[in-house]
Amino acid sequence: MTVRPLPHLLSWNSSRDDGWHAHVRAACDYYVRRERISEVQRHLALLFFNSSLRTRTSMEVAGAQLGAQVTTIVPGSGVWGFEWEDGKIMDGDKAEHIHEAIGVLSRYYDAIGVRAFASGTDYLSDRDDVLLRRIVSASTAPIINLESAFWHPCQALADAATLCTHFGGGVRGRKFVLCWAYHPKALPMAVPNSTLIMAARLGMQVTVVRPDGFELDEGVMASARSHAARHHQTVEETSDRAAACHKADVIYAKAWGGRLRYVDQAAESSLRLDLTDWRITAELMDRTNNGVFMHCLPVRRGVVVDDAVLDSRQAIHLLQAEFRLHAQKAILAHIWGL
Amino acid sequence: MTVRPLPHLLSWNSSRDDGWHAHVRAACDYYVRRERISEVQRHLALLFFNSSLRTRTSMEVAGAQLGAQVTTIVPGSGVWGFEWEDGKIMDGDKAEHIHEAIGVLSRYYDAIGVRAFASGTDYLSDRDDVLLRRIVSASTAPIINLESAFWHPCQALADAATLCTHFGGGVRGRKFVLCWAYHPKALPMAVPNSTLIMAARLGMQVTVVRPDGFELDEGVMASARSHAARHHQTVEETSDRAAACHKADVIYAKAWGGRLRYVDQAAESSLRLDLTDWRITAELMDRTNNGVFMHCLPVRRGVVVDDAVLDSRQAIHLLQAEFRLHAQKAILAHIWGL
Amino acid sequence: MTVRPLPHLLSWNSSRDDGWHAHVRAACDYYVRRERISEVQRHLALLFFNSSLRTRTSMEVAGAQLGAQVTTIVPGSGVWGFEWEDGKIMDGDKAEHIHEAIGVLSRYYDAIGVRAFASGTDYLSDRDDVLLRRIVSASTAPIINLESAFWHPCQALADAATLCTHFGGGVRGRKFVLCWAYHPKALPMAVPNSTLIMAARLGMQVTVVRPDGFELDEGVMASARSHAARHHQTVEETSDRAAACHKADVIYAKAWGGRLRYVDQAAESSLRLDLTDWRITAELMDRTNNGVFMHCLPVRRGVVVDDAVLDSRQAIHLLQAEFRLHAQKAILAHIWGL
Repeated sequence: MTVRPLPHLLSWNSSRDDGWHAHVRAACDYYVRRERISEVQRHLALLFFNSSLRTRTSMEVAGAQLGAQVTTIVPGSGVWGFEWEDGKIMDGDKAEHIHEAIGVLSRYYDAIGVRAFASGTDYLSDRDDVLLRRIVSASTAPIINLESAFWHPCQALADAATLCTHFGGGVRGRKFVLCWAYHPKALPMAVPNSTLIMAARLGMQVTVVRPDGFELDEGVMASARSHAARHHQTVEETSDRAAACHKADVIYAKAWGGRLRYVDQAAESSLRLDLTDWRITAELMDRTNNGVFMHCLPVRRGVVVDDAVLDSRQAIHLLQAEFRLHAQKAILAHIWGL
Repeated sequence: MTVRPLPHLLSWNSSRDDGWHAHVRAACDYYVRRERISEVQRHLALLFFNSSLRTRTSMEVAGAQLGAQVTTIVPGSGVWGFEWEDGKIMDGDKAEHIHEAIGVLSRYYDAIGVRAFASGTDYLSDRDDVLLRRIVSASTAPIINLESAFWHPCQALADAATLCTHFGGGVRGRKFVLCWAYHPKALPMAVPNSTLIMAARLGMQVTVVRPDGFELDEGVMASARSHAARHHQTVEETSDRAAACHKADVIYAKAWGGRLRYVDQAAESSLRLDLTDWRITAELMDRTNNGVFMHCLPVRRGVVVDDAVLDSRQAIHLLQAEFRLHAQKAILAHIWGL
Repeated sequence: MTVRPLPHLLSWNSSRDDGWHAHVRAACDYYVRRERISEVQRHLALLFFNSSLRTRTSMEVAGAQLGAQVTTIVPGSGVWGFEWEDGKIMDGDKAEHIHEAIGVLSRYYDAIGVRAFASGTDYLSDRDDVLLRRIVSASTAPIINLESAFWHPCQALADAATLCTHFGGGVRGRKFVLCWAYHPKALPMAVPNSTLIMAARLGMQVTVVRPDGFELDEGVMASARSHAARHHQTVEETSDRAAACHKADVIYAKAWGGRLRYVDQAAESSLRLDLTDWRITAELMDRTNNGVFMHCLPVRRGVVVDDAVLDSRQAIHLLQAEFRLHAQKAILAHIWGL
């Protein structure tokens, strides 16, 4: 391999014949021909405004298996923070508007995955996924939702495939219980929303069991009921855990914050703190029809679920995690027409 | 695929026949033959002492398209800080000297891109790009300047290709205005320096418009004039924005700190704070010859330029950003003899 | 390339015929067939609980050269912190147990490299490498030790190959001196432990020279003596540097904390502070048999070793660093049966 030194690497500013004009022509040429000499066929950017382990790693592996180079970007870590609002005078600490940032990434990448959690302070904005919609409107590349304020479609797709694989086609009519669990933080509703719709769309018999004050969004509940009705199923809602788990085929545990957090954080916190016994125990699992335990992860042992459940053969949370990879390959293959 | 467990993975310290000596021989053999079984032909390291979005992502994509594996390193984030000075007793918080760090990376990578901004405190050191020169002298691999204290050659190459593509060969003799803009921080001069030389080398008719106290380096100005003279062009300098923009073909906006910052930061700050009206407005663009607006990004909306300009069809800043990819492919292809 | 927009990207929740069920089937299918369309054959995760430059970069390059995609994970930087203890009620700031984290990564990656340094507070736990053993037991994929509490096998393998290459087969019987050096911090013993065993296994004549109070673990010393005995060699131990370096073929410098740190940190610190003259100097090297200087890096210039030694032709620390790449390729090739 011949390595040719670049003349005037520092400034490219000294003489007439340093090859600079040839490089300008070469750059113009690359623009016109867009030539690539590698096996890499596509480029995928992952933009994480919130932490991730599974989503990041499964997307990096999924991308690579489909012939894509993957860049993971964590704003604030080697990359400056972004301004999201339109019409702002940007004289603070935000160096770049999301409009330019996404506009630029759209020119380099063939798809952009974005994780941007709920604000927890503006319910209407969260429900309408305003942040992710701003990203979508700034982008000329397809945007993949890696968990937005209100939805987590990759998780739901993975969970659906996990259920279909586990029950081997006999998933319809099975009893699926989405069971609220205690958590020291008021978590977003993206996963429970997507989980509820997912189970209803699979034609399962769905029960949402949650304490009073932790109801899911009425619009999401109505949508789930409408999906269920197409399969001649129903969506039940209750605060009686023992009854809900009776003969269940699936216990899907998930913590989320009460809607009260949007108007009075302290009151929601105090309401939640009385509910530490909302934890999936072996006794609760014993009431099921030898049901499986599911969770999207990360999960707090001893808080959301007991070790005895998580370490039992009924727990299929690691299979769910594996399905993130397969589900996201399905999404990428679809987007890219593979 | 057969996965063979490594004996004594933890310590490799228990018996006579655990294969350790065979591994030593295998390692020696890899050294001699340097065998690779993958399609990856080359390795590129990117070392960012300062934040980046475009440069990092466009280099990662460029490298991948040319068959290279790319590693991005952000010292201080999972990597310790480096000592730059020679002859230091390293008993403080710096764990490794840049001499060893670059010496090691040179052995793994076929090129190393480095971003190291201006100190803002030592003008002679910044002007001579002392930090980047230390990197160059410690390296046996080609070093690519991803913005040093005084120059940003990748940006300039991308901008030149953008101009040549936009004006379709008719770039010579066009009126190019490098227009200072207000910014809350005293930014480095690397981009304006490289931009000025770039426009002069393209044979454009160049005007630098900046407030008093924000003159560019005399040596850079002289070099630009000398390049311009070869094309029978001139480089004008003024503080009259309205006149400068009259019939311009290109308005290239850029903020930079006054040289006063090197001796009295507070005085430079106070001087700059009176210049918040140095912002590119639609009115200013109206004075041009239907000229294009350029900026290297990131750009602060409402501070450096109005939304009305950035969102107009005259703005070609996203095309500039795209050309970073093509320009850097030209540089890598040259370095690697592709 | 056709890019097909994903319907209902945000929620996947609106109509009957949005392709969602087709995607569920596709995901199930990917699970069964595990199809890949790229040249990437394997996936390697690198998990750094402590900083790294050489290990990370050499593993990324090694993986790529063997056809693997590599993901580097730094917990705490875009990834939450992990709980290591079993049976804990996870109501603090740890969001995920290492059991789940490693269980999930095992499903995506074909090998996982882990760096987890010594605690410095629990000697028995460090000596037994309890943290790394927990990782190993949680993983279904092979774990590669990238420096644990007590061992650094990749470094030792690289050093062995460096010595064999440098001495061209005549390494047996050469005089190898592992020489303690001053350092402002009480560093772990992983490198000296692995270095000692490595030299003994190569059949070298080994001397450990260290101040009183900085003895290595008795079990490690005994193991080294047992390895040496098989080659009819001995392992000497002394605190007389001048005598130890006399006619040495190799001076391997390394700082480590005294075992006193485990019971009284302040006392160990104060003991160490009196030993700042334990530095490798040109005078010490002059006592050797034109010996080579080795160090695993990072190294503090002027503290562990003088510039005059590190910049001399006797220093082969950069060759050692290069061998990290070759040694780790040998390990990966073995694990993957290449």
